[in-house]
Amino acid sequence: MPQPAHPAAVNGLTLAQAEAIADAALAKGREIGLLPLCVVVLDAGGHVKVTKREDGASLMRPEIAMGKAYGALAMGFGTRELARRAQAMPGFTNALSDLTGGRAVPVPGGVLVRDAANILLGAVGISGDASAQDEVCCMAGIEAAGLVPDNGDPA
Amino acid sequence: MPQPAHPAAVNGLTLAQAEAIADAALAKGREIGLLPLCVVVLDAGGHVKVTKREDGASLMRPEIAMGKAYGALAMGFGTRELARRAQAMPGFTNALSDLTGGRAVPVPGGVLVRDAANILLGAVGISGDASAQDEVCCMAGIEAAGLVPDNGDPA
Amino acid sequence: MPQPAHPAAVNGLTLAQAEAIADAALAKGREIGLLPLCVVVLDAGGHVKVTKREDGASLMRPEIAMGKAYGALAMGFGTRELARRAQAMPGFTNALSDLTGGRAVPVPGGVLVRDAANILLGAVGISGDASAQDEVCCMAGIEAAGLVPDNGDPA
Amino acid sequence: MPQPAHPAAVNGLTLAQAEAIADAALAKGREIGLLPLCVVVLDAGGHVKVTKREDGASLMRPEIAMGKAYGALAMGFGTRELARRAQAMPGFTNALSDLTGGRAVPVPGGVLVRDAANILLGAVGISGDASAQDEVCCMAGIEAAGLVPDNGDPA
Repeated sequence: MPQPAHPAAVNGLTLAQAEAIADAALAKGREIGLLPLCVVVLDAGGHVKVTKREDGASLMRPEIAMGKAYGALAMGFGTRELARRAQAMPGFTNALSDLTGGRAVPVPGGVLVRDAANILLGAVGISGDASAQDEVCCMAGIEAAGLVPDNGDPA
Repeated sequence: MPQPAHPAAVNGLTLAQAEAIADAALAKGREIGLLPLCVVVLDAGGHVKVTKREDGASLMRPEIAMGKAYGALAMGFGTRELARRAQAMPGFTNALSDLTGGRAVPVPGGVLVRDAANILLGAVGISGDASAQDEVCCMAGIEAAGLVPDNGDPA
Repeated sequence: MPQPAHPAAVNGLTLAQAEAIADAALAKGREIGLLPLCVVVLDAGGHVKVTKREDGASLMRPEIAMGKAYGALAMGFGTRELARRAQAMPGFTNALSDLTGGRAVPVPGGVLVRDAANILLGAVGISGDASAQDEVCCMAGIEAAGLVPDNGDPA
Repeated sequence: MPQPAHPAAVNGLTLAQAEAIADAALAKGREIGLLPLCVVVLDAGGHVKVTKREDGASLMRPEIAMGKAYGALAMGFGTRELARRAQAMPGFTNALSDLTGGRAVPVPGGVLVRDAANILLGAVGISGDASAQDEVCCMAGIEAAGLVPDNGDPA
């Protein structure tokens, strides 16, 4: 079957950047003694660049981590804000969950990734420990890669 | 493959009307300085005539905007009323969300469109800023097109 | 509810470009006397920028047009090639349809959009007339917008 | 929220092994000049350990790669054999696709991973180039990690 000789050039988050984020996020989790984690890094279109699930992390951690990252991209803010809306507007967050086929998980630990020029590159989601701890690792991973995190709180 | 020589004539919302609504709605959003919006205009059967997503609007805005417009058509009133029912009867709006595959989003910003003779032509949904602001743009778009909006509040 | 003051800057296909493609594609259809068409323009992440459905186009035309555009982005080539694979490998194309929830329609009329630097910007899908005619309008729309189409045939 | 102090110990494929497989598989693809690839490594329960998508790989490559790996685990043999059954028994592979929600993709490039004692550890799926090329990279990755591949052909 013929294949295109050269795929289109792409811009956006690179695999190298996504690996750097994921590795630094997991290193943070080990440093502070968290439970086994799963980290998912999505590009700006919500498609997976990298998933890594630590040994002992339970079965749905990849889907939950992806749901946090996707939820952030779906709405355009980190899931700390989505968690607030789930308290204030449960009907809306239920509808968003249905609308996305379950891929919008409204708890902290889904963080947008921007570059220095404020271009949206993608999002990171982590699941495995308490949501606030998961988010700490998202932030650490993004910053270690030289990029700018947005967890949904005012800057 | 044989094709019918002439498609059936149709009545109902025209593409020209739907474009006029969408363009005026987005113009309103720019005029009052809202976040990037997505507008969806559905015909009376709940099928898309026009979608326009502004640059910077997040990933699920088309589905949310459609869900508001579809929710209005699904129940026969604007989503301001659907939002009230979500407060009073969360079990019902969750069931409606499941029943429609997530296409009934119970927050303001889904507005029915009628003509001067009170014929139902379709619905408009907008997502991108706070729900009340989204709804302002729906109303402005419908009125600019010379049609009659119904947001779910008593006239 | 607090809203971010400034959304992230974005790159990629603009609404203005997507409108230019859609309008020129529909104009081509009128020029050559085709049946009523629906055109969908997706960004590189597979999310809608613009949908326009002409008066008289049947109910599922938006979903079919989107499925062609999404199928092209899903696989990285225009749906003319996906149609060839459907002949040669029906099990694979059935699986791809299931995998995407029906959003990969393997017939001509889904065309990738690149810029002069070969960056992938998105895809256009059209449905309403015979597939080959639908594709003619995709190509015309993309070229009229000063961009580069890829229908899945060798250049 | 209380958390268990120590997660259960686990056996089976480790993250370190999955990373070794994925990195060697992608290195093979670069060595022989393939199109951009996505590699997914699943544990024996069919849950993701690692996903890596190279820059330029199209949108659905993660899902297709996972579908190959999952298809191999679903049936207990590499997808080279599943592809043969798709030719001989298309009704069965279509049903399997439906049954798994699209997660059983019947083309080569889904390879089981065993250890030296013949214990099933998981599966690797790759998508991005022609299926036979994708499979070459699965085999190379598994062997580079000191493990035993099974592509569905008799040993």
